[in-house]
Amino acid sequence: MELVTEDNITELAARRWGTAHDPRTKELMTALVRHLHDFAREVRLTEPEWMAAIQWLTRTGQISDEKREEFILASDVLGLSMLVVQMNHAFEKDATPATVLGPFHIDGSPELDFGGDMSDGVEGAPLYVSGTVRSLDGSPVAGALLDVWQADADGSYESQLPEVDEARLRAKYITRADGTYCVRTIAPKGYSVPMDGPVGDLISRTDISHYRPAHVHFLVNAAGHEPLITHLFQEGAQYLDSDVVFGTKQELVVTFEPHEPGPTPDGGESAVPWVEARYDFVLQPVG
Amino acid sequence: MELVTEDNITELAARRWGTAHDPRTKELMTALVRHLHDFAREVRLTEPEWMAAIQWLTRTGQISDEKREEFILASDVLGLSMLVVQMNHAFEKDATPATVLGPFHIDGSPELDFGGDMSDGVEGAPLYVSGTVRSLDGSPVAGALLDVWQADADGSYESQLPEVDEARLRAKYITRADGTYCVRTIAPKGYSVPMDGPVGDLISRTDISHYRPAHVHFLVNAAGHEPLITHLFQEGAQYLDSDVVFGTKQELVVTFEPHEPGPTPDGGESAVPWVEARYDFVLQPVG
Repeated sequence: MELVTEDNITELAARRWGTAHDPRTKELMTALVRHLHDFAREVRLTEPEWMAAIQWLTRTGQISDEKREEFILASDVLGLSMLVVQMNHAFEKDATPATVLGPFHIDGSPELDFGGDMSDGVEGAPLYVSGTVRSLDGSPVAGALLDVWQADADGSYESQLPEVDEARLRAKYITRADGTYCVRTIAPKGYSVPMDGPVGDLISRTDISHYRPAHVHFLVNAAGHEPLITHLFQEGAQYLDSDVVFGTKQELVVTFEPHEPGPTPDGGESAVPWVEARYDFVLQPVG
Repeated sequence: MELVTEDNITELAARRWGTAHDPRTKELMTALVRHLHDFAREVRLTEPEWMAAIQWLTRTGQISDEKREEFILASDVLGLSMLVVQMNHAFEKDATPATVLGPFHIDGSPELDFGGDMSDGVEGAPLYVSGTVRSLDGSPVAGALLDVWQADADGSYESQLPEVDEARLRAKYITRADGTYCVRTIAPKGYSVPMDGPVGDLISRTDISHYRPAHVHFLVNAAGHEPLITHLFQEGAQYLDSDVVFGTKQELVVTFEPHEPGPTPDGGESAVPWVEARYDFVLQPVG
């Protein structure tokens, strides 16, 4: 019988998890064992700290439900989500960069026409986001699908609200033959991530800003191109340089230009002041 | 504004968590960020794997309750619990070594006299565990408190069973003036850790044995000595060399000697065959 000691336990544990039947599971689990043990050794983890971690993990699971994904939030604020995004979507320099998906995307949003209003009565300044979806060589991409979603003025996404009857601040748009699109929504605002759970508990023990700068989410799919998960951020918005989930990239910051009442990019007319953001998405071809 | 890239995100995240107000929290969180990112980079974690991990963590929290501590089990089977025990209880060579506490200890067990029966009608072969509690210099320790608990023949601890009226297979014993103790219980059996949850899901993808060898838990407290959290294991028991939680140590393996009906170590008499285990606990003096 092999004696378990502080010196050999990592080897023993890695060897055991190395019996995983699937090679990738073996790779993941043995690496996990080594890094977990390295962490515990480096900080000389104490038993009360270990127990606090167990309880934190348990609370994080238990506060999660269909409307709240506390472990995704934890991954976000530790910079892990953005690291994973970057490793898996390393596009060429001129392509629009990816950023975090976040936990608030909902499948099956309704399809709206060019300029269709996805805010549909939700309070806020009218915002038109328009431009062209292009391939890396500059050619316009017709028929690209833009899945768009955002938070309301209180920072709430549809999935966080009780009993929403129909799609709220989310819609799909398809680019026209010339690659153009036009989204009618409301100007987003910065918001705090939920601070009433275990992740908020941790953040509140630091000087970390718990806000995200104003942004609109886009998921762009087009034949022959890599899917693009990204945001557009408002230039000059608060928290741009302290985004709690590390999602901000300079390339994704766009001017939100205020306009007096008058003609809008969808060919219509606004009776109230409105805001315009223009952005051309550049997609990375597959392969 | 600093661009977030795959190259700088770990530094950015470590710097942010480095604003923790408490120096130890700062140390723990920055090390956690670095090791978590190192792991993700080393394995080139994919987004589906990341999502599977998020869902696994969430399920692990959600299956936990007062009777089930799935994150402790996860820590146990990854060898983390035993590593933490060893780092925090590095006794001298001749002292009885520590092993994992496990999730099944219950505070406030009743105090029994020398030879008192903590099994109290629970089915099993009568087992007497007796010996002396000594200090590292060999001197007997009077008044040491032994908090003892174990599973029943089905591998169930009291905390896993619904509606147990009184203490079941757990009790406290105090050593006599000469340091001796005598526990009357039933012979323990090996058992499987719970396999119907997320930890079992993982184990079942490997060749890892999901059993623990037969053992009795002891928590020994005595004035002037380090608390000792340990088990005694039955020599020759199945799973001794494959304990799923890495808890087995050669020094903790004791002979369980079968006896015909007759005199027992408590000064009484057994009308049925019984089993004897003799063990002297050696405590590490404080400081």
